[in-house]
Amino acid sequence: MPRYCFTLQVDPRHLDAYRRDHAAVWPEMLRALADAGWRNYSLHLRDDGLLIGIVETEDFQRALDAMDATAVNDRWQAAMASYFADLDGPDGQHTAPDRAMQLVPEIFHLETQLAAADAHPTPEENPR
Amino acid sequence: MPRYCFTLQVDPRHLDAYRRDHAAVWPEMLRALADAGWRNYSLHLRDDGLLIGIVETEDFQRALDAMDATAVNDRWQAAMASYFADLDGPDGQHTAPDRAMQLVPEIFHLETQLAAADAHPTPEENPR
Repeated sequence: MPRYCFTLQVDPRHLDAYRRDHAAVWPEMLRALADAGWRNYSLHLRDDGLLIGIVETEDFQRALDAMDATAVNDRWQAAMASYFADLDGPDGQHTAPDRAMQLVPEIFHLETQLAAADAHPTPEENPR
Repeated sequence: MPRYCFTLQVDPRHLDAYRRDHAAVWPEMLRALADAGWRNYSLHLRDDGLLIGIVETEDFQRALDAMDATAVNDRWQAAMASYFADLDGPDGQHTAPDRAMQLVPEIFHLETQLAAADAHPTPEENPR
């Protein structure tokens, strides 16, 4: 299953509220995410407000779109919007947090490279 | 299995070299990581040099220490050291990249909260 990593910037003034809300996400929101194909989804928050998300799903855009089609996501994103920095576009319009995510390309995955190395060992790798 | 997320800062001048080296990590290094208990380990690199790592392992410090005990890790870390920014300590000593990782606390994990919600449903969550 592909992994997708994204970043967002939480306003450092709102870290405590953001942590508190994510310690007990609405069950309806949790079930909507699972139904929309989000797997092994975690969020990590650095003290400077850098928010890192990691999710396993077949297609990230499809997983986002599937959430976009739910009513609970509208309510959740609206509840979260004020916690983020830099969500205002040049036209002054507020962007939903889940539309401001910046995808961070994967450059390494251990098991993927291990499988490739095992499938095509070179003499140098197996000196004995 | 607990998940650990960490960040490091790659010098933006060295992004291409860093990506290239991680597209084909030494098989000996891959096997050492697996033997040391690193699971589902991925690295993600943002264009500004932010490096994000995610690994599943029972105990992150133990996984780091187990790598520290291998000779291949010394060689790998030495090969990577020049790619990173801000590794010099106040005493001018260079810090190995795997000692400069900044752990980013997890604030949310979907399956963990889903299991808790299913185990303890509240009337509000199940209106029918």
